[in-house]
Amino acid sequence: MADPRPVDLRSDTVTRPTAAMRTAMAEAEVGDDVYGEDPNVNALEAEVAALFGHEAALFAPTGTMANQIALQVLVPPAGELLCDADAHVVTYEMAAAAAYGGISTRTWPAVGAEIDPDLVAAMVRPDGYMAVATRAIAVEQTHNRGGGGVIPLGTLRQLRQVADDSGLGLHCDGARIWHAHVADGVPLASYGELFDTLSVCLSKGLGAPAGSLVVGSAEKIERARLIRKRMGGGMRQAGILAAAGRHALGAHLDRLAEDHVRAARLAEALAPFGVLAGPVRTNLVPLDLTKFPLDAPALAAAARAEGVLVSVLGPRTARLVTHLDLDDAGVERAIDVLVGIFRR
Amino acid sequence: MADPRPVDLRSDTVTRPTAAMRTAMAEAEVGDDVYGEDPNVNALEAEVAALFGHEAALFAPTGTMANQIALQVLVPPAGELLCDADAHVVTYEMAAAAAYGGISTRTWPAVGAEIDPDLVAAMVRPDGYMAVATRAIAVEQTHNRGGGGVIPLGTLRQLRQVADDSGLGLHCDGARIWHAHVADGVPLASYGELFDTLSVCLSKGLGAPAGSLVVGSAEKIERARLIRKRMGGGMRQAGILAAAGRHALGAHLDRLAEDHVRAARLAEALAPFGVLAGPVRTNLVPLDLTKFPLDAPALAAAARAEGVLVSVLGPRTARLVTHLDLDDAGVERAIDVLVGIFRR
Amino acid sequence: MADPRPVDLRSDTVTRPTAAMRTAMAEAEVGDDVYGEDPNVNALEAEVAALFGHEAALFAPTGTMANQIALQVLVPPAGELLCDADAHVVTYEMAAAAAYGGISTRTWPAVGAEIDPDLVAAMVRPDGYMAVATRAIAVEQTHNRGGGGVIPLGTLRQLRQVADDSGLGLHCDGARIWHAHVADGVPLASYGELFDTLSVCLSKGLGAPAGSLVVGSAEKIERARLIRKRMGGGMRQAGILAAAGRHALGAHLDRLAEDHVRAARLAEALAPFGVLAGPVRTNLVPLDLTKFPLDAPALAAAARAEGVLVSVLGPRTARLVTHLDLDDAGVERAIDVLVGIFRR
Amino acid sequence: MADPRPVDLRSDTVTRPTAAMRTAMAEAEVGDDVYGEDPNVNALEAEVAALFGHEAALFAPTGTMANQIALQVLVPPAGELLCDADAHVVTYEMAAAAAYGGISTRTWPAVGAEIDPDLVAAMVRPDGYMAVATRAIAVEQTHNRGGGGVIPLGTLRQLRQVADDSGLGLHCDGARIWHAHVADGVPLASYGELFDTLSVCLSKGLGAPAGSLVVGSAEKIERARLIRKRMGGGMRQAGILAAAGRHALGAHLDRLAEDHVRAARLAEALAPFGVLAGPVRTNLVPLDLTKFPLDAPALAAAARAEGVLVSVLGPRTARLVTHLDLDDAGVERAIDVLVGIFRR
Repeated sequence: MADPRPVDLRSDTVTRPTAAMRTAMAEAEVGDDVYGEDPNVNALEAEVAALFGHEAALFAPTGTMANQIALQVLVPPAGELLCDADAHVVTYEMAAAAAYGGISTRTWPAVGAEIDPDLVAAMVRPDGYMAVATRAIAVEQTHNRGGGGVIPLGTLRQLRQVADDSGLGLHCDGARIWHAHVADGVPLASYGELFDTLSVCLSKGLGAPAGSLVVGSAEKIERARLIRKRMGGGMRQAGILAAAGRHALGAHLDRLAEDHVRAARLAEALAPFGVLAGPVRTNLVPLDLTKFPLDAPALAAAARAEGVLVSVLGPRTARLVTHLDLDDAGVERAIDVLVGIFRR
Repeated sequence: MADPRPVDLRSDTVTRPTAAMRTAMAEAEVGDDVYGEDPNVNALEAEVAALFGHEAALFAPTGTMANQIALQVLVPPAGELLCDADAHVVTYEMAAAAAYGGISTRTWPAVGAEIDPDLVAAMVRPDGYMAVATRAIAVEQTHNRGGGGVIPLGTLRQLRQVADDSGLGLHCDGARIWHAHVADGVPLASYGELFDTLSVCLSKGLGAPAGSLVVGSAEKIERARLIRKRMGGGMRQAGILAAAGRHALGAHLDRLAEDHVRAARLAEALAPFGVLAGPVRTNLVPLDLTKFPLDAPALAAAARAEGVLVSVLGPRTARLVTHLDLDDAGVERAIDVLVGIFRR
Repeated sequence: MADPRPVDLRSDTVTRPTAAMRTAMAEAEVGDDVYGEDPNVNALEAEVAALFGHEAALFAPTGTMANQIALQVLVPPAGELLCDADAHVVTYEMAAAAAYGGISTRTWPAVGAEIDPDLVAAMVRPDGYMAVATRAIAVEQTHNRGGGGVIPLGTLRQLRQVADDSGLGLHCDGARIWHAHVADGVPLASYGELFDTLSVCLSKGLGAPAGSLVVGSAEKIERARLIRKRMGGGMRQAGILAAAGRHALGAHLDRLAEDHVRAARLAEALAPFGVLAGPVRTNLVPLDLTKFPLDAPALAAAARAEGVLVSVLGPRTARLVTHLDLDDAGVERAIDVLVGIFRR
Repeated sequence: MADPRPVDLRSDTVTRPTAAMRTAMAEAEVGDDVYGEDPNVNALEAEVAALFGHEAALFAPTGTMANQIALQVLVPPAGELLCDADAHVVTYEMAAAAAYGGISTRTWPAVGAEIDPDLVAAMVRPDGYMAVATRAIAVEQTHNRGGGGVIPLGTLRQLRQVADDSGLGLHCDGARIWHAHVADGVPLASYGELFDTLSVCLSKGLGAPAGSLVVGSAEKIERARLIRKRMGGGMRQAGILAAAGRHALGAHLDRLAEDHVRAARLAEALAPFGVLAGPVRTNLVPLDLTKFPLDAPALAAAARAEGVLVSVLGPRTARLVTHLDLDDAGVERAIDVLVGIFRR
C-alpha cells in the first residue's frame, strides 16, 4: 500500500501549483486590476499578446469566460457563429453563447480535429435582410473532444481565407494551443496571425491554479474588458494568479513534450485492446468502448477502485489525460490497472 | 404585350385573397382575442388542433412567430435544440431562437429533406452538470431549402423514438405540412401524433393573407399564449384573419395537388438543362446553377426582364414555387421564358 | 330584458370593425409586405409618417411589438432605458425589453401622467466603463395606468432637452397619442418632432381590428424592419389590416372627442362616491377603491352580473374605458349599474 | 518628499494582501474545484454558510458574479426584480441582469440606504397573464452609492414580510454586510435568516485579493453552481484565493471598526465645508459638491496632484473610502490635502 494517492488521468486541470509557483504567487506585487493597476496582470497580458504577435490580451478567471468574451466581441447579438458540433464552446460552456451572447450557432460534423474548409465555406451565410448573417468561425486547437488532435497549419490558413472572403471573424479556442505548438513545432505567432481572437489557458497543461487570457487587437481587447466586467470576471488583485501564470509560461511550456510522450506510452499499451478512439498526438488519450463489454462509467468505476481516475465523456467514450502532476511511475501504474481491466 | 402582370414564382406567400375569402373576412364575427373572445379565432384554433389530433392551438401573425413560440415552449433558456443546418428556424428567423429564446443550437448537415435518425441520436447530449443538455429536436416538413422534399413518415417515427429515448421535445416546422399530407397521403393526424408541437401556416400554400398556428397540448398552448404576448403577437380582432384561414382550410387544401402537378411540369421542362437541384415532390422547384453560366441573381434579373419572377436563395441557387395564384398559362409562360434563358 | 349584450367598459381594444371598415378591408388591394409590395401597407406607413413629420413608419401586428421594436432600435443590448414604474413597456409587455432586447430598465415613480424632467435628468448615467450607460427615455402618451392623463407639451419639450443633453433617444409609447392630440389640441407633428421613435395604435381608440406602427427616421425604420422579422411580425398580405387602419385614421380620429365627453360623464356620475383615482382627461376613468368596501374583482363581478364589464388593474384599482362601440345609452346604463353598486 | 506612495481613498478594493495572508495562500492545500475537490474552497463555503445560518455557499471570482448568479437563481428569464435606482446590481454590473439573465427591473427612488417597505410593497405585481410578475426584491447592505448607509434590521424584517406576502425571493447584495454587522452589532446570522440569497465579498473590507460568495439553501446553491459555470466562474485550484479569504474572515472582520473610526474622522474634518452628502456610518464618506466651485473630476485631479486619490461617482459626487491599507497617518495626510483644496 505504497501510494494512497490515486493516479489522476481525468484532466490536466487537476494539477497543483509547484513550490516555485507558490513562491511566485507569495511574492507577487499586485494592484487593483479593475483600475488597470496590477503589475503582474499587466505584464502577463503584454507577454501573452507578444507571444501571439497581437496588440493586447486580457486576463480572465476561466477558459469558458475567455472564450465567451471573445465570441461576444466577434459576434453581435443575433449574429451567427459557425463551429464544429463537438466544440467546447457549444458543449461545455452551458449555452452561454446563446443564453448570454444571443449568438446563433450552426455546426459542422465533428471528426476529431479534422476540418474541411470547403464545407465550412459552404455554410457561411452573407449579410442581408432575409437570413441571419454569419459573423465568425471558431475552431479548437488542440481539440478536446477530438482526442487532442492538432489542426494542421495549412487547414487553418484555408479557414482564414474563408473568413476573409466573407468578412468574418476567426476565433481559436486555444486552451491547449500550447500542446499544438509543441507537437507540430508551429510558432505561437504563426497561430496568432491567423486569428482575430484567441483564448489561451494557464490552468490546464501549464499547471497554474486558474486563469485564461483573451488575445486580440487593442480595440477588441478594450471591448473585451467591458464584457469581462459584465460576465463578472473583473477581479481585483488578480496578480496573485497572474504571477503563477507567468511562472508557468516560463517553466512549463516546453515540458509539455513529456506529457505527449507519456500519452503515447499509454496509447501504445492500450492499443492491443482496440479501445483507442483515434491517433494520439498530444496529451489526450481518447477511448472508444463501443466494442468493449464495460461502458464508460463502469470502466471509470473499476479503475477508481484500483486508484486510477479516468474521465467519462459519454456512455461509451472515456478519456485519459497526461499532465504536470503525472510522472512515469504513475503512467506505468495506470497501465497496469487499465490493462488488467481490459484483459478481464 | 397581353399580360403586364408578371408570373410570380418567387414564393407561395405572394398569393392574394380570393373573392370568397374576402367575403369570409368581410362578414367575420370578431371579438377581442387577447381576452379570448374572438369566435373565429377560437373556432380556427379548435379546428386546427382537431386536424392534428392535439388538444389546442394558438393563432399567431406569422410562421416565424409560431415556430419561435413553439421552440420557447419546448426549450428553456440555455437549453439545446438540434435541427438541420438549413432549417428555416436557424436560417430565416433572424437568430430569434438564440437572441430571444437563449436557445443553443447544434445542427446536422442538411441533405434535402433527408434525415439520418442515428446521426441525430448520436448528437443528443444528456442532462447533467458538465455539458449543455439537449431539450428538443426540430424538423421541417416539407423542407424549404431542401427543395420541398417530404420527410417519410417512417423517418419521423424513428425521430420520435430518438426523442422519447432521451426525454426530448420534437417540433415540426409545418409551414408546408399541407403539401406533405397531399403528396404522401399521410393523414394530418398521423403527423400530429408524432410531434409535441407543430407550427402550420395559412399564408403560404393555403393562400390566406396572414396567420399561422402553434399546435400542442393544452398545457403547452397555455404557455405559448403568454410567450405570444411577449413576442408582440396578441392581436385583438384577429378573427378577420382567422376567417380567411378557416375558408382556406376548407377550400384550398386539396387543391395543392394542382400546385404539385404544375411544379412537376416546370421540373420536366427544365430537367434537360441540368439545373434541377433535386427531385421535385411538392410545389417547390429548386435550381442549382453551379454548372450554368449565369449565377442566381443574373438568372433572376434576366427572367424578371421578361415578366417572370424567381427567388434567389444563394449565389448559385434559385427557386421556383407554384401556388394558388398561378395557373397553367402562367406555368407555360414561365417555361418559355426560362427555357429561352437556359438555351442562350 | 332589452339588450343582452353587455356594456363593455373594459378597454377600447374591444371595438368591432364598422361596416365601412369591413368594406375597406374587403376591397383592399394587397401584396406581399415582406417583399415591400403591399400597396395599402406602404400607403399607411407613408401617411402615418407624414402625420408625425417623420421620414418613415413600419406596420406591426400589435402595440407591444411596435414598442419593443422601437426600444430595440434605440437601446442596444446591455444599454439602459429610463421610464416610469407604471409604464406599459415594463408592465404589460411581459418583460420583452429585458428578455428579448437585453435592455436594463430603471424607473422613476409613477404619479399619473406627471413627469419631473429634473428627476429624470438626475437618473441619467453617462457612457463610460464603470456604470451601465443610459441610452433612451420612454414616455407614454396618454398614460394607461396613469388614468389616461396627458403629458403637457412643455414637459415633453423639457424631456427632449434632457435627452439631447446626454445624447439619448426619446421614445413615445403613443398607443393613445390620438387622444392627447384631441384633448390638448396639439398637432400630431408637434409631438412627432420631439421623439426619435413613436409607436401608435390603430386598434384602440381608432377601432381597427389590429395593427400598430413604429414611426421614425428612414434609417431607424430600416433597422426596425429587420427586428420586426426577428420578432415574428413580418406578415404577408397585411394590407387587409392596413386598409382598416387607413379607414380608421380618416373616420375615427376626430370623433375621439365624443369618447372624452362620455368618460367625463361617467366621472361626473361617480365622483360623489369618492372612487375616482384622479382627474379624467381622455377616455379612461380610473377607479381607486381603497376606501370602498368592495375590492376591484368584487366590483367587476357585481357589475358583470348586471351587464357591465369593467377592467381590474390591481386589488383596489379598476378602470372604465369609453370607445367607438359605446354610445350614450350604454354610458347611462353603466352609470345606473355602477351607482347602484356604489350605493349599496 | 517623505512618502511617494499616494493615500488611496478610492475604494476598499485596492488593498494588498498582508504577509500573513500571503503565507496562507502559499501554503494552501488545493484541488480541482470544478470537481468539488478543493479543500480550502469547500471549507470556506461551509464556514461562510454557517456564519449566515444557511445550508450552503458558493465561491465566485467577483461580487458582480456572485450577485448575478443569485439574481438568476431567484428570478427566471422574463421575471421582474425590484431594487432601488442606485443599487449596484443595476448600476455597476453592466446590465448583466437584463442582458444575461433576461431579468426586468423596476426601481424605487434611492435615498441613501433608506427604504420604505410600503412603497416597495405597492410596486409588487402579482403573477398572472396580463402583467410581468415580480419575482424578487434586492437590497444592498451597506449601500455603496448610498454612502455606506446601513439598512436597519427592522426595515429588513418588514421587507421580508413584503416578500413573504407575495411569495417573492429576497436578495442581499452584502458586499459590505460585514460593515453593517460591525456598525450595528447585528449578528450575521440575523441578517442571514432574512434573505433567500446573499452575496458577500472577501475583497473589499476584508482585504483578500479576490473572491465573493453566494449564500443560500442547498438547492439554490446547486443551481448557482451551474450558473457559475455558464458565467465562466468555475475556477480550478481556487483554494489559493479561498485560503486568503479564510484568513481574512479570521483576521480582518472585527478590525473594520477601525475603518469606521477613520471614516468618521474624515467626515468630521470635512463637515465644516458643507460637502458631506450624508451621515457617515461605516467606511464610506460620500461627498456632494453641488455647492462647491470644483466638480468631482476637478477635485479628484487636484487631490491626486498632492498624492491623495478619491473616487468620482458623478459630475458633482465623489467618495472617500477607508480600508485595511490606510492608517491614521494616511487619514491625516488626506485631511490636510482635502482641507487645503476645500479652503481655496
